[in-house]
Amino acid sequence: MRATSISVLACFASLAAAQTFQRLGGCPDLGCIFPPDQVDFLAGQYFDIRLEVHSPVNGSEARVGKPDENFKLTIAKKGKKSKAVSVTEFFKIKKEPELEKWDFTWFEDRFAQDANTPSLVNVTSKIYRRIALYEPGEYEATLTYYGKQKTVANWFVRNIPTKRRAKNVIMFVGDGMTTNMITAARLIAHKSINGKYMTKMALDKFPVLGHQMTHSMDSFITDSANSATALYTGHKTTVNALGVYVDSSSDSLDDPKFETVTEIFRRQRPKGGVGIVSTAFLADATPAGLSAHTANRGDYDHVIGSYYDGGLKDWTEWDGPDVLLGAGAEDFLASEKHRDYFKLFAKKGYNVALNNTALSKASKTDKLLGVFSKSNLPTWLDRNVYQSNLYNQSNYPDGSGRDADDLPGLKDMTLKAIDVLDKRHRKDGWILMSEAASIDKQMHTLDYDRSLGELLELDDTVRATIEKLKKLGQLEDTLIIVTADHGHGFDVTGSVDTEYLEAQEDDRSKRNAIGYYDNSGLSQYTVAGSNALRYSEGVHFPARWDPRYSLHAGVVAHPDHRENYKVHSEGPRVPAVSDKEHGVVANYKDAVTGFLVNGTLPVDASQGVHSLTDVPVFARGPCQELFGGVYNSIDIFFGVAECLGLSQTKASKN
Amino acid sequence: MRATSISVLACFASLAAAQTFQRLGGCPDLGCIFPPDQVDFLAGQYFDIRLEVHSPVNGSEARVGKPDENFKLTIAKKGKKSKAVSVTEFFKIKKEPELEKWDFTWFEDRFAQDANTPSLVNVTSKIYRRIALYEPGEYEATLTYYGKQKTVANWFVRNIPTKRRAKNVIMFVGDGMTTNMITAARLIAHKSINGKYMTKMALDKFPVLGHQMTHSMDSFITDSANSATALYTGHKTTVNALGVYVDSSSDSLDDPKFETVTEIFRRQRPKGGVGIVSTAFLADATPAGLSAHTANRGDYDHVIGSYYDGGLKDWTEWDGPDVLLGAGAEDFLASEKHRDYFKLFAKKGYNVALNNTALSKASKTDKLLGVFSKSNLPTWLDRNVYQSNLYNQSNYPDGSGRDADDLPGLKDMTLKAIDVLDKRHRKDGWILMSEAASIDKQMHTLDYDRSLGELLELDDTVRATIEKLKKLGQLEDTLIIVTADHGHGFDVTGSVDTEYLEAQEDDRSKRNAIGYYDNSGLSQYTVAGSNALRYSEGVHFPARWDPRYSLHAGVVAHPDHRENYKVHSEGPRVPAVSDKEHGVVANYKDAVTGFLVNGTLPVDASQGVHSLTDVPVFARGPCQELFGGVYNSIDIFFGVAECLGLSQTKASKN
Repeated sequence: MRATSISVLACFASLAAAQTFQRLGGCPDLGCIFPPDQVDFLAGQYFDIRLEVHSPVNGSEARVGKPDENFKLTIAKKGKKSKAVSVTEFFKIKKEPELEKWDFTWFEDRFAQDANTPSLVNVTSKIYRRIALYEPGEYEATLTYYGKQKTVANWFVRNIPTKRRAKNVIMFVGDGMTTNMITAARLIAHKSINGKYMTKMALDKFPVLGHQMTHSMDSFITDSANSATALYTGHKTTVNALGVYVDSSSDSLDDPKFETVTEIFRRQRPKGGVGIVSTAFLADATPAGLSAHTANRGDYDHVIGSYYDGGLKDWTEWDGPDVLLGAGAEDFLASEKHRDYFKLFAKKGYNVALNNTALSKASKTDKLLGVFSKSNLPTWLDRNVYQSNLYNQSNYPDGSGRDADDLPGLKDMTLKAIDVLDKRHRKDGWILMSEAASIDKQMHTLDYDRSLGELLELDDTVRATIEKLKKLGQLEDTLIIVTADHGHGFDVTGSVDTEYLEAQEDDRSKRNAIGYYDNSGLSQYTVAGSNALRYSEGVHFPARWDPRYSLHAGVVAHPDHRENYKVHSEGPRVPAVSDKEHGVVANYKDAVTGFLVNGTLPVDASQGVHSLTDVPVFARGPCQELFGGVYNSIDIFFGVAECLGLSQTKASKN
Repeated sequence: MRATSISVLACFASLAAAQTFQRLGGCPDLGCIFPPDQVDFLAGQYFDIRLEVHSPVNGSEARVGKPDENFKLTIAKKGKKSKAVSVTEFFKIKKEPELEKWDFTWFEDRFAQDANTPSLVNVTSKIYRRIALYEPGEYEATLTYYGKQKTVANWFVRNIPTKRRAKNVIMFVGDGMTTNMITAARLIAHKSINGKYMTKMALDKFPVLGHQMTHSMDSFITDSANSATALYTGHKTTVNALGVYVDSSSDSLDDPKFETVTEIFRRQRPKGGVGIVSTAFLADATPAGLSAHTANRGDYDHVIGSYYDGGLKDWTEWDGPDVLLGAGAEDFLASEKHRDYFKLFAKKGYNVALNNTALSKASKTDKLLGVFSKSNLPTWLDRNVYQSNLYNQSNYPDGSGRDADDLPGLKDMTLKAIDVLDKRHRKDGWILMSEAASIDKQMHTLDYDRSLGELLELDDTVRATIEKLKKLGQLEDTLIIVTADHGHGFDVTGSVDTEYLEAQEDDRSKRNAIGYYDNSGLSQYTVAGSNALRYSEGVHFPARWDPRYSLHAGVVAHPDHRENYKVHSEGPRVPAVSDKEHGVVANYKDAVTGFLVNGTLPVDASQGVHSLTDVPVFARGPCQELFGGVYNSIDIFFGVAECLGLSQTKASKN
């Protein structure tokens, strides 16, 4: 009974402190414990504990005096013999860590930000590194400070089966992908007659469907770092953080870590394989989440370093993936900021491919690094339909200033990764993460055509992956999950007669080009006579991208911009630009013939933003039943860990 | 092989004719067959066949001459002995129907509409009434006209098990409800700590999740009539149609019908019960879809008449539901337009309840009609939080001009309906449809608070229904489905500091009150000290509706309107009004302190519109596994019919 009542008290404390502007997310009072209250762990998962005691100097919480230097943490495993012991005793920590001190400032609200009146907080802190909880059950961590003040964190080690059920796991991440976007992609790429689709998306054929909640620990809208962390580690954290809880210190690399699924897998099965594929620059959040530990996703050198050799001392045995394919050559090329990673990876035994020809020829038996352009990979639409946009980009990954025009897509990279992983790790199995990154990136810039093209490429990749696994005899041993890390508030509400819109003179008349309900009509993207774009058997993309009747699509929050609802055939969309006098304003050139739509975001936002919606999860293979229904994003990690038998309920002896 | 090639040809013909403005939806050429190509049937489901031959007088399809009066329809069951015979022979129709003739006009596009240059079409037609296909398999209907021209419709009678697996079925319809809205409702009503929800929605506990595609037969955006028809009959049709395909005649009551699930159930199990519950006026589309057959959902007298006595001669044995609860008294009160339905229902043996007190006291053994207000039922938010909005409405259902202030909610009505159905039909089982109508209605007027309140009321009703069924010992015999009929392009992208917004002078500065990503913070709707709204154990609604930090919510397509992101405590929102000079413009009074958002819809639209997105399906109980994954809206009908054992593979002898 005692445990329950404390749990309720802790609950109220957290809620009272809940603010939109926060002193420190996850800290319910002046004493902070990370991992915070209500956190779940995989049995045996390594993590750090960070304690902080705050003494606000000014602002609404101001107090007199220095922060406590004599705070204590006790831990109790709840149950019959529940007894709280000191953290050092509980975890058999040999040496008490040193006390750290710092200060930080924060703004209590938007008024304080405008007035530039920050609140100052002095901090004392300690960190306990690389510990683990093995026995499933509930733990109570109690921080005592300022004499009798207490902050309680309840931790839960999940009791899940330890038997491995899948040899391989593939996680496809459609970055920013929602159900709404899948519906729109289906509409433009699959023919239907009288309301019946003649073909299905690969995703539509998955036997199990779930929804996962993407919110973060301390804000209900997440970014991709935070949400990737939840999917790969079972821990939600703060915007911009990868594999750590965010403490209040200024150092982004000293924050309390927790182990990722790939780190645990490689530690427990040293002969298991890991592959990471993305259409983004490889230091970006979604691939980085499998490997990096930083409060700042912008620590690109830390990210690439973590792929190269783990990047962290005294952490896990993780020393990088077998296969790493994507873009972002600027973070690999030697520069003032970092080492020549191309040379280092090659020296470590990786084949290094810089174009699609080299990728397809690369040996399946060696480790493989493929980086195919600077910045992000050009989109499917530019690589396949509007190919002239590939030129004058000076984005060849060797830094020579040439154009990268011999480019793989997500499918080429994913199938190659599977070839290598299967060849190297058929016996011990492997984990592959494959990200369709520009669903999100093109949604941010309101380029719905390019975003849906990326989504269809993901779907085609999933289809081809299933075929590939079948050929390799690995399909029944492989859990395939397709999900997203968060949404964008996108939907389609009708069609637009683009000819009519262009023929109208004023903004209000142009809006009459929009047809809704019965006047939405049928998709014209699948209809194109002799000029139709053609694809291989079973591959589905639009027959044309520029029908007279286009989609009336939009997002719920956006900068000032113009809309003519036509495909941007001359290159990716730039909806808003910065104007010296006004800040961010609509980019006239983006849609000269269109009408103005004023923004519903702060005037410094030049792009759309992420949204709240639960995102879909499609699952097939061993353990697929774990992924049906509605659950939290962290449950994806726990499901994958369960399927791979990664729960370690006893400490190993070495 | 021959069958396949014709099927492909028919496919191309359909696609070539696909237009946003259509001569007649579902008609691929100058010859039209309804039911059209690619339609599915439940074995034994009654339907009508309508044939039309068109002769366009002017416009892009103009031809010389009258429409063919000698067209022929043949039907063939595909298979080894495939042989096409005349429709009258195939269905043993004793008397060839008479030839009908009419003409109609349509606009080829928006330019023609502006110029008022309609295209005229002369028509010949026949209709074959109340036939059925019993043997599962594929059928080919071929219309031959103008000599050698042919229109082919392939029909599929599904081969599904005939064994009944569920005694009762409850279909909850959250009108317009999307996954995005469920996510937002969870955020404002359920407390979370560090990213973990402390309580779950009833929907979140369902074991099986699916997505269904809501598009209609001839437009990718549907209305609620069309989509209700798909859910209840397995046939997608045209906007505004209920239980019929829409022919080109001007009479809305002569169109080709098909049988609804409640009609089939009552025909096959005369002792089975049917209940219909809605928070809308009962002549509205979602309840009407179970009973009415009209091309025009606005035929309210036909709808109420169909509840009263079936309303149609020579159709099925359907003579209305046992329980009918909702609003819209104006369609029941005696008037110049229609009979005194209150008197008629009472005479037929129904108890008639006009307020919540009478509802709760009504006998469980008699049939029950409850109509609790004129127009739609006031929203949950007005009934429970801002109750002063219930006054000066003159909406008491007896037409006396009093206010209706003794009002049930969706939960009261649904639980009462279950009591009556269980009492009357425990042995033979029953079907109940319960609609949360104002999720949609309040979303149309951008009143997100009211819409989410309705959604939470639906969730609470689902929770209470499960408890009720448990108490009655009926839970394990009852299939419960919760789904929607279509979506709205709604999402949440952050929070708004409403104090900051109000303190700013100009529109652009006000937008800086919006916080996204980390500045979205935590939900403040669940945090309220001593003033918190309180609910019974297990019931979850916001603790307050007016936090300083409100949701930054929106829809993708809307009229001109203003936003201050505050709850409309003085009554439902009116975002736009008509102005003599400009058409529809923003309603200044709706959000005086807010900023202007210009519209992204035609300037005659004063409300938001439906969207494309697939909508969620939650299922539990017998046959729940039929509702996982991604499928078409019509599959809901086929799943329910399968679960109730309604597939009738042989004609009955009487």
